[in-house]
Amino acid sequence: MTQANFGVVGMAVMGRNLALNIESRGYTVAIFNRSREKTEDVVASHPDKNFVPSYDIETFVNSIEKPRRIMLMVQAGPGTDATIQNLLPYLDKGDILIDGGNTFYKDTIRRNNELADSGINFIGTGVSGGEKGALEGPSIMPGGQREAYDLIAPVFEEISAKAPEDGKPCVTYIGPDGAGHYVKMVHNGIEYGDMQLIAESYDLMKHLLGMTADEMADVFTEWNKGELDSYLIEITSDILTRKDDLGTGKPIVDVILDAAGNKGTGKWTSQSALDSGVPLPLITESVFARYISTYKDERVKASEVLPKASLVAAEINKEELIEKIRQALYFSKIMSYAQGFAQLRVASKENNWDLPFADIASIWRAGCIIRARFLQKITDAYDRDADLENLLLDDYFVEITEKYQQSVRDVVGLAVQAGVPVPTFSSAIAYFDSYRSEVLPANLIQAQRDYFGAHTYERTDRPGTFHYNWYDEK
Amino acid sequence: MTQANFGVVGMAVMGRNLALNIESRGYTVAIFNRSREKTEDVVASHPDKNFVPSYDIETFVNSIEKPRRIMLMVQAGPGTDATIQNLLPYLDKGDILIDGGNTFYKDTIRRNNELADSGINFIGTGVSGGEKGALEGPSIMPGGQREAYDLIAPVFEEISAKAPEDGKPCVTYIGPDGAGHYVKMVHNGIEYGDMQLIAESYDLMKHLLGMTADEMADVFTEWNKGELDSYLIEITSDILTRKDDLGTGKPIVDVILDAAGNKGTGKWTSQSALDSGVPLPLITESVFARYISTYKDERVKASEVLPKASLVAAEINKEELIEKIRQALYFSKIMSYAQGFAQLRVASKENNWDLPFADIASIWRAGCIIRARFLQKITDAYDRDADLENLLLDDYFVEITEKYQQSVRDVVGLAVQAGVPVPTFSSAIAYFDSYRSEVLPANLIQAQRDYFGAHTYERTDRPGTFHYNWYDEK
Repeated sequence: MTQANFGVVGMAVMGRNLALNIESRGYTVAIFNRSREKTEDVVASHPDKNFVPSYDIETFVNSIEKPRRIMLMVQAGPGTDATIQNLLPYLDKGDILIDGGNTFYKDTIRRNNELADSGINFIGTGVSGGEKGALEGPSIMPGGQREAYDLIAPVFEEISAKAPEDGKPCVTYIGPDGAGHYVKMVHNGIEYGDMQLIAESYDLMKHLLGMTADEMADVFTEWNKGELDSYLIEITSDILTRKDDLGTGKPIVDVILDAAGNKGTGKWTSQSALDSGVPLPLITESVFARYISTYKDERVKASEVLPKASLVAAEINKEELIEKIRQALYFSKIMSYAQGFAQLRVASKENNWDLPFADIASIWRAGCIIRARFLQKITDAYDRDADLENLLLDDYFVEITEKYQQSVRDVVGLAVQAGVPVPTFSSAIAYFDSYRSEVLPANLIQAQRDYFGAHTYERTDRPGTFHYNWYDEK
Repeated sequence: MTQANFGVVGMAVMGRNLALNIESRGYTVAIFNRSREKTEDVVASHPDKNFVPSYDIETFVNSIEKPRRIMLMVQAGPGTDATIQNLLPYLDKGDILIDGGNTFYKDTIRRNNELADSGINFIGTGVSGGEKGALEGPSIMPGGQREAYDLIAPVFEEISAKAPEDGKPCVTYIGPDGAGHYVKMVHNGIEYGDMQLIAESYDLMKHLLGMTADEMADVFTEWNKGELDSYLIEITSDILTRKDDLGTGKPIVDVILDAAGNKGTGKWTSQSALDSGVPLPLITESVFARYISTYKDERVKASEVLPKASLVAAEINKEELIEKIRQALYFSKIMSYAQGFAQLRVASKENNWDLPFADIASIWRAGCIIRARFLQKITDAYDRDADLENLLLDDYFVEITEKYQQSVRDVVGLAVQAGVPVPTFSSAIAYFDSYRSEVLPANLIQAQRDYFGAHTYERTDRPGTFHYNWYDEK
């Protein structure tokens, strides 16, 4: 019997597509699914592929050459633990389990530690790019034992997307234990921010300029030719051209309910930033923007009783405003990535991960949802200074903020006057103005805390902690 | 030997002051501390008080009349569990442990359940008001077994603050298990928001109007006479009049370092909102504002390289702007409380707590840090409609937002142009404009999610979930 080179557990669409991708690079792939039907279906649909199907876990494990490389593409959470427990009796020391699910990084750290006790290597890897990416080339963010990664690297490099700029595979070793899943989590948080920024840009063009979906599609197509060139801008343009498939004749966006779902990874990113003391307002506002969108019934009620903004009478130059929105979008995107990479920097220190920031930006250049020309600028910045504390301190970003800051200020000002909600645009400028402020009003907050809770404060002119006798007579 | 009516474990300042407060109402109070020195110090400092000190836990428990009422005022976390374990062998069924620490509500739910198995009642209670409040009358938010609460209610009603409006004690039964600590957590989150809003108001007066600390003190004194009347405005005014106690001659605020600390309860509030799908942007921005303030060294660096905002040339009418800032502050405060109470509403449903919203606002009217005249408006709103989905749907708040919205828009616009960071003011108007929007751009986000991840969407014109064949030819 042929020994398979690689195993995949879980034949839902992501697992199936990854198995097909691996097989297409010349590997024989052992496949297994908890219920046999899915495996049978894969085999029936792809009779000519080098798949080795198994219908019990022992046969599956035995069908793979050692040291075994087995990728788990199962529902993240208890399903992952159950799958690991089922596999464990049949594994040998030195085998490598690879979790490709959207797993919370702390679970990956725990599993990596537990399995290491049994001599099993555990790689937790982010896989971004959706179904299509899994099949044609995703961006892959693996964390775990370095020596185990080296054994899977040839496969991952073949199946991953290749950056259009230099053909490099969009995969690199991220770091120990949970590093890969952490980076994937922040990737997803950034994705939330990018999407909300695009949504606000769309909303501004719609409400301030009364533009149609087709007109906006043209704007996004145009933007996609410049520094905003990215997958999300590209699909936004495509989306805006599509007509309702149920025959109303309307643009499809106009019949889609404005209540955004989420799978929790944006929330995790915010919660992790909150735990680590990292300011991450833009992504967090984008998570909250999705939440508030789900309160549709309340919003309809509120729209009937709450006052509208008085409309701005000033005439608006359409071309000029569109360009300002473009600049505001790029500026705000920079704020979001600056925050996300600052979060990675803190997490890297907290967990001793030694994250490769330049490479992370580099492997996001293709395959994943946030792929964008812009990412090269981040790689360049970290190539110039690997210890950069914040992207905003890099020359390129200093220059861009100099050029574009006025547009954000103008767009936010206009939106706020007109009553168009811009939670992430306004959060972006607030972050920028806070970050570049030598002095913030937190001195007053420290005084208040010392006043009511004797929490003490530091001084600007000498070291130490101090307490003021607020209750003494003046 | 005298049987004590009440026991207090933990003789740090909060425990000591609570014990003194209880004793002052005519009760004999058993006191205990892990290290004997603190207990000895309390006895030595207050020889004439009806304290029954003990130096081992068994004697302490036996010195209290049954059913015992024992309040734990120890460091929240493992210390609380350790204290409970030490007490447990000596307790009898029906005894009541009361945790008065700043405990995470999920720990309280767990402890309540565990102790219930042993027949011990467990009350988790928020105690707000700092050291002074503990001594003179705090606001108290107890959750746990109703029948156990009834046995401690007489004591809590006596020691609590009394509302100036009607003399009512600032304590009420909040709900089962973790309800009290949850409400205290949100109280603290709201406190973060209030403090940041005041800090932004101060910053605007300082930077846009060049006002001195003394001049701003007068403004806050004036504001404290009107609808903003509150403890935090009052102490802000006082703080701004104080001179450096180390003799520089400067206002004390001008020598306090602008790096705000935190004890984590604001963060918990945000994380809990994120878990519950509740939009809580204002409090969360205030947590992030504290975080960014701690990046002092980076900010100093950034201030040297990043571009400043071009100053607004337009002349500013001082009195007019101060009034606009006042209105913006009140408006934004309303947004913050609307978000916080919306969070309580969701938590109440999720945990079957049946929280008494009107009473919660009512017991915050005195004793606690966020005490304010404004809270009566919230009680009134819930008295009018106990099922109110959001405070913004109540007539009073509709009317106020109608009156004040233009001021927030103007203040945010001015701040953004001038480069004064206003993360919570701008978040407030973004929330307002989002909440009163019948249609948000989340339709585009849903289209994107369906495009790259086949996440499906709902439609505006018919029920069901739908998927669009984005990859088909147009």
